[in-house]
Amino acid sequence: MRYFVGIDIGGTNIAVGVVDEEGNLLRKLSVPTGASRGQDALVADMIGSVKAVVDVAGLTLSDIASVGIGVPGAVTPEGVVIRAVNLGWKNTPLAQIMGDALGLPVYLGNDADCAALGEVVAGAGSNCSSALMITMGTGIGGGFIVNGRIFSGCTGQGTEPGHFTFLYGGEKCGCGKRGCFEAYASATALIRQTKRAMEQNPDSKMWALVDGDIDRVNGKVPFDAAKLDDGTARAVVAQYIDYLGMGIAGMVDSFRPELIIMGGGICNQGDYLMIPLNETIRKYCYASDEIAPPPAVRATLGNDAGIIGAAMLQVSQEKSKA
Amino acid sequence: MRYFVGIDIGGTNIAVGVVDEEGNLLRKLSVPTGASRGQDALVADMIGSVKAVVDVAGLTLSDIASVGIGVPGAVTPEGVVIRAVNLGWKNTPLAQIMGDALGLPVYLGNDADCAALGEVVAGAGSNCSSALMITMGTGIGGGFIVNGRIFSGCTGQGTEPGHFTFLYGGEKCGCGKRGCFEAYASATALIRQTKRAMEQNPDSKMWALVDGDIDRVNGKVPFDAAKLDDGTARAVVAQYIDYLGMGIAGMVDSFRPELIIMGGGICNQGDYLMIPLNETIRKYCYASDEIAPPPAVRATLGNDAGIIGAAMLQVSQEKSKA
Repeated sequence: MRYFVGIDIGGTNIAVGVVDEEGNLLRKLSVPTGASRGQDALVADMIGSVKAVVDVAGLTLSDIASVGIGVPGAVTPEGVVIRAVNLGWKNTPLAQIMGDALGLPVYLGNDADCAALGEVVAGAGSNCSSALMITMGTGIGGGFIVNGRIFSGCTGQGTEPGHFTFLYGGEKCGCGKRGCFEAYASATALIRQTKRAMEQNPDSKMWALVDGDIDRVNGKVPFDAAKLDDGTARAVVAQYIDYLGMGIAGMVDSFRPELIIMGGGICNQGDYLMIPLNETIRKYCYASDEIAPPPAVRATLGNDAGIIGAAMLQVSQEKSKA
Repeated sequence: MRYFVGIDIGGTNIAVGVVDEEGNLLRKLSVPTGASRGQDALVADMIGSVKAVVDVAGLTLSDIASVGIGVPGAVTPEGVVIRAVNLGWKNTPLAQIMGDALGLPVYLGNDADCAALGEVVAGAGSNCSSALMITMGTGIGGGFIVNGRIFSGCTGQGTEPGHFTFLYGGEKCGCGKRGCFEAYASATALIRQTKRAMEQNPDSKMWALVDGDIDRVNGKVPFDAAKLDDGTARAVVAQYIDYLGMGIAGMVDSFRPELIIMGGGICNQGDYLMIPLNETIRKYCYASDEIAPPPAVRATLGNDAGIIGAAMLQVSQEKSKA
């Protein structure tokens, strides 16, 4: 059995784990990211964490085949971080720095791509080899796995599923464009849609759920109120699912995945979200009578997906050569 | 040198050609499609045309490695036409029927995918191995080639670039949905946009170009009038290029191709279209400062792309195994 280390650099924590070649996460630990401390401090923490978690797993570095790192930003196939805005990194040769320090091969991937790979190796997509993962959070992230490998495109940066134009001329998006899918289907967008509906409907039960404080609205509030049969909340949820399903239908027509894996806290709504979402996707996919759309299912690994996927970067690349 | 036959089943004509393994079209001929005559008559014509073109090329069927057919509809990897609406075909085992009649292996592909493959083998994309082709015609067609092979997705039907939602809740599309990209960026859409602008602007020079008959508007009229500095036409063209460029930017963010190949009569506008289109794509691509968008260029093979791509189906599949 070969062992791998996966590192997921998040905004809050750096999570590090030892993973076997079947994608089982054997041990993990995490340290605060503290990006403001600068690159050297982060790299030192990552090196220390790798050594610590390998030790906790009862192994030594010589038992580790490679280290994979999921980076919140764009990376090159050669292991350079082109840019990671939240870390303040630009053109950082991270694979070389970490490889020199650990004496191991180091692979880099985008964090959303790594999460998608993790779910396909060991999570919701473990019965298939090709899946599209979409995560609704502050923005919309995602990755596309084809035949067990990250689809990185010709430039190596993978798919960017949040910024195709979904409503030309519509809501301003954080990226500077108008009408991006992210501006309609992220958790942030749902919260904005909810607040607007509340302002227009002072009688909505949603006001009671936040004790009259609109700043306390989160992505759960409209669902909770919809389940209490609040008409305003039901309309917000129905509109949101229509946005989400229509956008995903376009991705299905583009990518034809075997499976859609959905991540993010909104998925905790379970069947209340997933059943109408699947109906909406089917309704909007092109020629869905002849070409059955793939099922949309919830991710199962949570934050571990990023660690597992990062650890599996080497295995995934070997597979594709076979 | 191996030889192949490619067949492109179009709405008006069935075009058949002999192609060498480098993608050179040696001889071609075409016969009227006459789809209303029914499947048996079409198949008989295709068989006769294959024999005739092989003969004209100075070859015999024993010199032909395989026959490839580009079908206007969805096909399976096993060679069945799932559905081709304009031919009235459904679940037709075309590869088997043609293979039995000719004693040769027969490969099927979608016609837009075959055209994309043809352009990558022998046309605008002959210097690259991965390209996205978009054709603006009655609708929007296209295909995505990765490493010299048609990207067919898990279901085998390839990408459908005309029906992602581009303006949620917008124009009614022929597919039944609202706001599809096709409803804003096809040649049909441009003609509709032109007619509306003319109706609102009786002083536009476009009226003179069609001798006052709005039914004579085609995709060339707004460009011709814009070049005469007609303000209405200039606005129509600018808006159309904005639609087209923004939609393509979303595809670039999804697929990260090396090259965008543009087909359809509108591309005859040359630099007058392509220069602002490339600027628009760059403006709207995500993070285009860090990840340079691929160039958008005109297709070079015209209708021959479909014949050549169909003929190359076998070679393309062999390549991907290498």
